[in-house]
Amino acid sequence: MRYFADVKKPIQFEGPDTRNPLAFRFYDASRKVGGKTMRQHLRFAVAYWHTLRGTGGDPFGGPAIERPWLTGSDPVDTAERTLDAAFEFFTLLGVPFYCFHDRDIAPEGATIAESRQNLERLVKRAARRQRETGVKLLWGTANLFSHPRYTHGAATNPDPRVFAHAAAQVRAALDATRVLGGTGYVFWGGREGYSSLWNTDMAREREQLARFLHMATAYADEIGFRGQFLIEPKPKEPSVHQYDYDAATVLGFLREFDLWDRFALNIEANHATLAGHTFEHEVATAAIAGKLGSLDINRGHPLLGWDTDQFPTDAASAVAAMFWILAQGGLRRGGLNFDAHVRRGSFDTIDLFHAHIGGMDTFARALLVADRMRRDGVLKRFVTQRYAGFRKPMGRRILGGKATLPELEDWAAKQGEPPRVSGREEYLENVLNDYLYATRLD
Amino acid sequence: MRYFADVKKPIQFEGPDTRNPLAFRFYDASRKVGGKTMRQHLRFAVAYWHTLRGTGGDPFGGPAIERPWLTGSDPVDTAERTLDAAFEFFTLLGVPFYCFHDRDIAPEGATIAESRQNLERLVKRAARRQRETGVKLLWGTANLFSHPRYTHGAATNPDPRVFAHAAAQVRAALDATRVLGGTGYVFWGGREGYSSLWNTDMAREREQLARFLHMATAYADEIGFRGQFLIEPKPKEPSVHQYDYDAATVLGFLREFDLWDRFALNIEANHATLAGHTFEHEVATAAIAGKLGSLDINRGHPLLGWDTDQFPTDAASAVAAMFWILAQGGLRRGGLNFDAHVRRGSFDTIDLFHAHIGGMDTFARALLVADRMRRDGVLKRFVTQRYAGFRKPMGRRILGGKATLPELEDWAAKQGEPPRVSGREEYLENVLNDYLYATRLD
Amino acid sequence: MRYFADVKKPIQFEGPDTRNPLAFRFYDASRKVGGKTMRQHLRFAVAYWHTLRGTGGDPFGGPAIERPWLTGSDPVDTAERTLDAAFEFFTLLGVPFYCFHDRDIAPEGATIAESRQNLERLVKRAARRQRETGVKLLWGTANLFSHPRYTHGAATNPDPRVFAHAAAQVRAALDATRVLGGTGYVFWGGREGYSSLWNTDMAREREQLARFLHMATAYADEIGFRGQFLIEPKPKEPSVHQYDYDAATVLGFLREFDLWDRFALNIEANHATLAGHTFEHEVATAAIAGKLGSLDINRGHPLLGWDTDQFPTDAASAVAAMFWILAQGGLRRGGLNFDAHVRRGSFDTIDLFHAHIGGMDTFARALLVADRMRRDGVLKRFVTQRYAGFRKPMGRRILGGKATLPELEDWAAKQGEPPRVSGREEYLENVLNDYLYATRLD
Amino acid sequence: MRYFADVKKPIQFEGPDTRNPLAFRFYDASRKVGGKTMRQHLRFAVAYWHTLRGTGGDPFGGPAIERPWLTGSDPVDTAERTLDAAFEFFTLLGVPFYCFHDRDIAPEGATIAESRQNLERLVKRAARRQRETGVKLLWGTANLFSHPRYTHGAATNPDPRVFAHAAAQVRAALDATRVLGGTGYVFWGGREGYSSLWNTDMAREREQLARFLHMATAYADEIGFRGQFLIEPKPKEPSVHQYDYDAATVLGFLREFDLWDRFALNIEANHATLAGHTFEHEVATAAIAGKLGSLDINRGHPLLGWDTDQFPTDAASAVAAMFWILAQGGLRRGGLNFDAHVRRGSFDTIDLFHAHIGGMDTFARALLVADRMRRDGVLKRFVTQRYAGFRKPMGRRILGGKATLPELEDWAAKQGEPPRVSGREEYLENVLNDYLYATRLD
Repeated sequence: MRYFADVKKPIQFEGPDTRNPLAFRFYDASRKVGGKTMRQHLRFAVAYWHTLRGTGGDPFGGPAIERPWLTGSDPVDTAERTLDAAFEFFTLLGVPFYCFHDRDIAPEGATIAESRQNLERLVKRAARRQRETGVKLLWGTANLFSHPRYTHGAATNPDPRVFAHAAAQVRAALDATRVLGGTGYVFWGGREGYSSLWNTDMAREREQLARFLHMATAYADEIGFRGQFLIEPKPKEPSVHQYDYDAATVLGFLREFDLWDRFALNIEANHATLAGHTFEHEVATAAIAGKLGSLDINRGHPLLGWDTDQFPTDAASAVAAMFWILAQGGLRRGGLNFDAHVRRGSFDTIDLFHAHIGGMDTFARALLVADRMRRDGVLKRFVTQRYAGFRKPMGRRILGGKATLPELEDWAAKQGEPPRVSGREEYLENVLNDYLYATRLD
Repeated sequence: MRYFADVKKPIQFEGPDTRNPLAFRFYDASRKVGGKTMRQHLRFAVAYWHTLRGTGGDPFGGPAIERPWLTGSDPVDTAERTLDAAFEFFTLLGVPFYCFHDRDIAPEGATIAESRQNLERLVKRAARRQRETGVKLLWGTANLFSHPRYTHGAATNPDPRVFAHAAAQVRAALDATRVLGGTGYVFWGGREGYSSLWNTDMAREREQLARFLHMATAYADEIGFRGQFLIEPKPKEPSVHQYDYDAATVLGFLREFDLWDRFALNIEANHATLAGHTFEHEVATAAIAGKLGSLDINRGHPLLGWDTDQFPTDAASAVAAMFWILAQGGLRRGGLNFDAHVRRGSFDTIDLFHAHIGGMDTFARALLVADRMRRDGVLKRFVTQRYAGFRKPMGRRILGGKATLPELEDWAAKQGEPPRVSGREEYLENVLNDYLYATRLD
Repeated sequence: MRYFADVKKPIQFEGPDTRNPLAFRFYDASRKVGGKTMRQHLRFAVAYWHTLRGTGGDPFGGPAIERPWLTGSDPVDTAERTLDAAFEFFTLLGVPFYCFHDRDIAPEGATIAESRQNLERLVKRAARRQRETGVKLLWGTANLFSHPRYTHGAATNPDPRVFAHAAAQVRAALDATRVLGGTGYVFWGGREGYSSLWNTDMAREREQLARFLHMATAYADEIGFRGQFLIEPKPKEPSVHQYDYDAATVLGFLREFDLWDRFALNIEANHATLAGHTFEHEVATAAIAGKLGSLDINRGHPLLGWDTDQFPTDAASAVAAMFWILAQGGLRRGGLNFDAHVRRGSFDTIDLFHAHIGGMDTFARALLVADRMRRDGVLKRFVTQRYAGFRKPMGRRILGGKATLPELEDWAAKQGEPPRVSGREEYLENVLNDYLYATRLD
Repeated sequence: MRYFADVKKPIQFEGPDTRNPLAFRFYDASRKVGGKTMRQHLRFAVAYWHTLRGTGGDPFGGPAIERPWLTGSDPVDTAERTLDAAFEFFTLLGVPFYCFHDRDIAPEGATIAESRQNLERLVKRAARRQRETGVKLLWGTANLFSHPRYTHGAATNPDPRVFAHAAAQVRAALDATRVLGGTGYVFWGGREGYSSLWNTDMAREREQLARFLHMATAYADEIGFRGQFLIEPKPKEPSVHQYDYDAATVLGFLREFDLWDRFALNIEANHATLAGHTFEHEVATAAIAGKLGSLDINRGHPLLGWDTDQFPTDAASAVAAMFWILAQGGLRRGGLNFDAHVRRGSFDTIDLFHAHIGGMDTFARALLVADRMRRDGVLKRFVTQRYAGFRKPMGRRILGGKATLPELEDWAAKQGEPPRVSGREEYLENVLNDYLYATRLD
């Protein structure tokens, strides 16, 4: 315990009545909810890049937050200190997982070989820390957007040399993820898009991207990496348009390029809203397709047009997400990754604890609420009843692909004008608020 | 000539120097551009609903515009007068096409049978007017969103009786479109979406929609309708979320539900921007997939969050659209439909002429500019050069699916750090402005 | 009890544990909170236009909801039935206030005189119903946006004849408001703005608007109307730009045109978000200026760009509003008006009850939470401490207007680099969530 | 000529037919337009921060662009080289002005005194370069947002020590601006706002800001700086809310805090659109108030929610701005500052030339178009005619503050229903496009 001395001991569950800011009100790791512990349900992960490496920079100012581990002149030494700080933080917080990009845990070297050596050295240290602490890797990924060479894209760069660099990075990151036992590998293509359509061959770039993904899965098979591949949709920023715009776009891409079987989606809340969707819409879109793999839980400001990556504190949105997760029987190999950073002005390490505690409690409470909602069955009964007509003969003929237009015209004429049935949105909003505010969760 | 007495004769081409507001500056129907006339290239269509039936209503006020043809107490008589006014307008304006919904040209009756009779009566009259004037039907469609029964969706309604009503309407609209020689049939699903996810079975509703579309194509085959089926994406409004969100979403839907071969897209400019895309992005997305069927040319206000459906006057956007259309060899069976209405305060019939003339000139000029750009080849050469590396051996291996990650790592290491090649966006913007403002189009 | 037969008796408080959808969980009218009853604190009002006259129309469909009172061919008879239904509803719901536009309660006649007669007739009936039920008028207003004559504005119309029509309406509406004992009169200028800047003399129109407001206050003085005048900001829709854009803009307008003393603001949540602000920002902006007069409580969908006017169900936003209201000692003559309508598909009168109950409970709970927060003083202490430096000598010199740049340079040099003090946003978010979810409100 | 060797000689005017990318098509500095040269009309300025110091960083990557002058380990040496490069660039481009922040031209030192020394040293060099080249300073400003100490605001920081630091910087920046003969001094308060309302005392912070501005003007008087003070509105980013939200908000602020006489506005296009306005709306709002001081000409992407600061290439928007500028008789002491940067992927110095040439040509052409529009008087006549009723007796009574509601009611009754007069928006859009595309500008 060296970097977080103001947190004397691991954060504990103290229940809703506590006023201790360094305690959980709802996250009780070992509490059973429907046969599994909260820890098993929620599979929280800390995002290495934001929590360990984030220093509050924004477009109008460089680093503002000083971390005691981000010091010294040798980048590999710094990386080692950062790794130690990371596991100290994970342990104090009590999260079971973390996620990283290659460049988060190890600095890029002067050559590809040197970069690989740096990564391997840090991976060894991480493996040791994982064994010591029991904290595991949820997923790994490669940072294919920060280095200037990726300005015009990585897999979608007009220059195959850049594509090849990206390939080298992904290879090493896959090796690292396999060694560290990661249950998934994520592709987030922040620069896989365009800034101007006039200098871009969009058809070709999409094919390049597909080829890149196929290569990655082939290599994973070769090295025996059995984790889940994930694509994380985002509509834009830094690009004007990103090819992985939203869940529906990525699902179409997977179908088009024969990548369906090997990939699932990693849905991020803030990316959902930037794309003009609610978080729950994106979660539902992925879930319905059987492709809800993992979640990046954060929050965007509803009135800001960029990726604010705030910690999730919105109960209603978290409940909706947990509802869909429970509906599909859990996240399996995925988890809830805090792709969120403290505000530029949250200068202290203690702010990192407040932030994660708030997020964990929000989702822990959401799990309890969603579980209660499911057990009560109120919403499910309502929806089932609403579509009851489609379980009757003509409804079944329609869904079975047997009905024809002329047949339906005759039937409609016989039925007469259908009654206007209220969708009861206001009632359902009240039901939700009952669960959010009035239901005892004991 | 009875309804538009202030327009004495058909609008004529008078060239860029005219100051006659009732003349074309750029649209010269018989002018040849690359082997086809402007008329053949542009295939302009008037939207019956806005131009003939629009009366300026908005959420804060009912009808404000009084049309001399929208009078009288018998709706069928009114519909006949409206049809006569329509063809008078088409002829005065000199457009080759129009588009309609069933309810635009004929009123809904008390029963399905009566609605069909009304429609058939008006279709006969329309067929006669078409023969007399030479004006043709570009595409037809059914209005499945105005009647209260469609509040919770048409094909995606929870009640199969509503689904059946919609089926009856589509059958009649397909019959009408076939009789009138329409080259296309459009599905625009304004209420095929949801207002609240909590009362919605999205998976089921998407299946219902797919079944509906399959039924329509089966019926088209049965009656020998050979026109192109089109889906028009829109993200929302009146719904909170519409299943046909954008081009990429619809393309994924067509793949998922085995509708790929029979459908193309009808891209609307204002729907593109509501979905967070540029018009040209949506046009390009459809074109690349071989699915750019037809366009609804209008414009949304960049700072307003609803479908303002203004007439297209933006040269840069029109040029981009025409560039993609020329690149795919034209619109074939599609056209450029003015899905736009005059502002609520444009009370006079003359405003309809200003609006369409402005839109036609914008696209006529855009055709000339895009054609010149293509013939000069400046942009194409730039893009070809930019991706030159992918025509060299390793680029070809990558695109051919032969390269592997380890192989690319080795190659990247040998190549060293790739040079940073400017994307030249600012230069390209200047080139575009050269074409837009400085190029002689004689 | 004739129009709402499915609600047998007035809605009662049953507490958080009830599962009766037609009961209040938190709104307990006579419960004391800090010396006043909930009824006195919250001063809820029903919006006559939405609740009684709304029929679910939207830009893609006309009326969809059928109300038993909106029947018959004589508009004055209909208006009388509607009024009776209104007071039945108010009484069943148990709200103390309502708000109306002139045209909500009485139809426009063929002439100004006839319109006035209609209004006077209905006002008499309303006065009688008020006496019978104890329900009061919170504020009145004139509808200066629905009639086609107001398409280009009312007070800001280019034609003084339209201005004069608007003046006539406001006169009658002020008379009506006075007779009915309204505690306020609201100006909402939906069409006091522009659609195109090119046909608009914005300087002149703003002056016209100022003249109009001065005339109204002069007339109010003349007739002895002592209610509060309110302006309700909105940025746009139906206009492209509305002169009363947001709270700050209106405050500037009041200063510029010497209207400061006579006006306060009526802040609407949905208008706030359309203007790019949070609700609480607008509430705070008005409160700081001493101009927070009244609130229109509703909610916009965060991802939709138009005025969805949904019922308020968001606890966090309601708590923020109540916090500012308590800070200024209450709403005084203002109230909380439900400027919200049920969704188009909420066809039944029972949906109106669900909607209002949900909104009332949301704000009742918010009152309890905000009161608890204030009594605990946690937030206030935090903020006070944060600005402590400005209560020390140099801080006081600065705020007192005595410090100079050279003096501050010297002082800064002596102080050295200031410490970086965390803003503790994440901690404060957790504190808020404690109050929202974990605090017992008994 | 050392840093821009690929530009052999100053950029020349070659006219619209040239295809030389390094020439002006429309900007002909000495061409007379209505009595003044283009150079005098447009008063272009280069933004030192973007053009000399910008290196393409964005939230997903650090510097990507390497400039030959941004090298070396001594920051003052680097600053000197940068200054030399700057004047070389200004001269090659042929702009008469530049703008800077203190930290652009001289590095911050370890102490306030050292910072001042650095600045003074560079100011001497700048003064020499100004004399040598004839290039002048348009305006100066202080960077009060990049350093971590300003994270919670500069003038609006909760800590008076930070306020004092900001004061020291502004003092030195005012001294520098005076020495260099700047005609203006700008306040842009990127962090003068809040991230969370819950930790913010907005009333107090606005007062602090007002005090700060008063101090600055007092100091300016003391040192005899006679330049124009400007506030540049922006709604948000990096803040969630900035106090100088938009033109109307700032005008209200100036009135409230007795700053009206000493300040004008610097309107930026991209800030306008981020605030939900068009550029021309903000320009018009400032102009009407007599407060249009200067412009930052750039452009935001209409679909992106952050400050993309692209170079201005949109003709319609530029024409509208120039129209308002000509209407008020020019910019006087203000100018057109390119607050714009090349895209991250525009790696070469030549891209800086393309960018500025495109922007200068856009505004030069806009000047010609706006001047022609004014001389023709078409728009002015239309608007004058539209409001003609307000020059008749009753209109004059209204504007003169003499009319009353009762009097207007009588008059309205006598006039009868006003005619519905079209606003002719579509016609006006065509007129604009005539000027933009079809008018010869010889």
